[in-house]
Amino acid sequence: MDAARTVADPEPPSIDALISMSAADMVKVDALIREHMDSPVPVIPALADHLIAGSAKRLRPLLTVAAARLAGARNEACLKLAAAVEFIHTATLLHDDVVDSSQLRRGRVAAHLIWGAPSSVLVGDFLFARAFELMVAAESMPALEILARASRVIAEGEVLQLTRSHDMDLSQELYLEIIRAKTAELFAAAAEAGAVSAGASPDKQAALRKYGQDLGVAFQLVDDALDYSGEAGTLGKNAGDDFREGKATLPLLLAVRRTGQAERAFWDRTVDRREQEPADLDRARELMRQTGALQATLDLAGRYAQSAKAALAVFGADPWRGPLEDLADFAVARHA
Amino acid sequence: MDAARTVADPEPPSIDALISMSAADMVKVDALIREHMDSPVPVIPALADHLIAGSAKRLRPLLTVAAARLAGARNEACLKLAAAVEFIHTATLLHDDVVDSSQLRRGRVAAHLIWGAPSSVLVGDFLFARAFELMVAAESMPALEILARASRVIAEGEVLQLTRSHDMDLSQELYLEIIRAKTAELFAAAAEAGAVSAGASPDKQAALRKYGQDLGVAFQLVDDALDYSGEAGTLGKNAGDDFREGKATLPLLLAVRRTGQAERAFWDRTVDRREQEPADLDRARELMRQTGALQATLDLAGRYAQSAKAALAVFGADPWRGPLEDLADFAVARHA
Repeated sequence: MDAARTVADPEPPSIDALISMSAADMVKVDALIREHMDSPVPVIPALADHLIAGSAKRLRPLLTVAAARLAGARNEACLKLAAAVEFIHTATLLHDDVVDSSQLRRGRVAAHLIWGAPSSVLVGDFLFARAFELMVAAESMPALEILARASRVIAEGEVLQLTRSHDMDLSQELYLEIIRAKTAELFAAAAEAGAVSAGASPDKQAALRKYGQDLGVAFQLVDDALDYSGEAGTLGKNAGDDFREGKATLPLLLAVRRTGQAERAFWDRTVDRREQEPADLDRARELMRQTGALQATLDLAGRYAQSAKAALAVFGADPWRGPLEDLADFAVARHA
Repeated sequence: MDAARTVADPEPPSIDALISMSAADMVKVDALIREHMDSPVPVIPALADHLIAGSAKRLRPLLTVAAARLAGARNEACLKLAAAVEFIHTATLLHDDVVDSSQLRRGRVAAHLIWGAPSSVLVGDFLFARAFELMVAAESMPALEILARASRVIAEGEVLQLTRSHDMDLSQELYLEIIRAKTAELFAAAAEAGAVSAGASPDKQAALRKYGQDLGVAFQLVDDALDYSGEAGTLGKNAGDDFREGKATLPLLLAVRRTGQAERAFWDRTVDRREQEPADLDRARELMRQTGALQATLDLAGRYAQSAKAALAVFGADPWRGPLEDLADFAVARHA
């Protein structure tokens, strides 16, 4: 990372400019999403719509569109790739919720609780396949390569997380490796695919990939902090889920390390053995505040956001640069 | 279909010639499969190997290779596509076994019972993504289009089966639509992709697609019959699984229709409500024999196999044609 500290912003960061500049493109992306989630098998569009309609921001396809425009795209080649990115994301959400037995997703009851886990698995497969059909229609072999690789890296990250998810002694390095794979890789690939579709030079492709990756890490770090500090209303999922599942995210790893032997019995019981009582989550939150574990997580997110912004320097004074910088600040400011 | 009856063969059909002609290619396909199922996350190759090592015949990638050679391929472009086809197939098996809570697969304990359903879902995703990475490496956009579409059609077929799987009044037409999607589509795409990679003319591509599709339907019809007539040893799964799960396959649909009101209470209890006693499977088998439901299923499989063979007429006296015809006969003769 280039920057070592978080720069305080006088005004709360906003993504309004980014949203308004990409609005015309995103209407078309949305139409592509609607069109391609259709199927003669009725449960498929019903289940897909439940999840896709719950997503107001469409952050990842927005990244593909904005990256393409920043890289100088004058045509609509990026739109199908953007829709494909949203389908890959939605497919992984459907499978994740089955894997984690989650209750809430995007502020709605998780799909597998309504249609059953089998339908969630199979509709995830449908959306994944549709993503590749859209990429074929976009006729860019390099973009296909980027997104096929990302899909594989995401699955590897998910499996790695699954096998190490209750390890309270997980190193910060391995934790970062997991979130780079399971979350940041799709941000990186979304931005890189946009750049590639615009015919950007290799250094600009690499810059947008780096921007996406660091933004994705910042985004996941803040998500992991919000699970201990946020409310279900703003999260779209239940606050405290990670704790209840004993998931080794950075706030927890830092709190465990910083409280040392004094609290080891508490963590062993609540995280390792997952024998929890109602007051345990509040106690965990309190320990995270006392030890600064939550703030340290957010500070790290801030440094990744700075690094993401720095990667855009290669683009000079392009009108799309500022709004993408704002997105990085916004990702971190969500905790406020 | 072109042929309306099954032609009796004086000798039992054998795929020995096909296997020996494709042996050198299949050694290379196997190496590609081994290489691409590797991952730094140890559970991935372990779980993938459990399933892939259990497959002795590699029927679908064999189809890609043989189709390419019949279509005149002189290079190795088909090998990566063949490995991709096996990965797509293995991914769907992993997900199917989670969806159906199956106990046995390819003669081994189903992977989800050893590594858990979450790992099976995610390793399936990994293999699916790897398939697309292999297709990108094969550098054929038309083959990518064929296999992306097939992946989507398979998922649609699986969902359709899931939602209609206990419907004893399912029409034969809808049953055939389901197996065309969930099974025959990958056979069709495997053969078509092989033809495309060989630069075959459109009529030869279409012929190989038709061969693969009818072979796939025959194959599934025989599988569905074997579930009532076979032994676990030759099936690689438990005989009677379909009955225990109340799956509306053709032998059952025909038996229900042909026994009429006399046995409606029996089918309602055992299939609809799945309240089964140990002797019920034998009674179902007996009713299938009495009504000819099992034989009618096999006869239909025979007609599809004839149709598959007829589709190859366009290739004249090519040395690969006879072995592929034998494969169609062999698919049906498995019940003997």
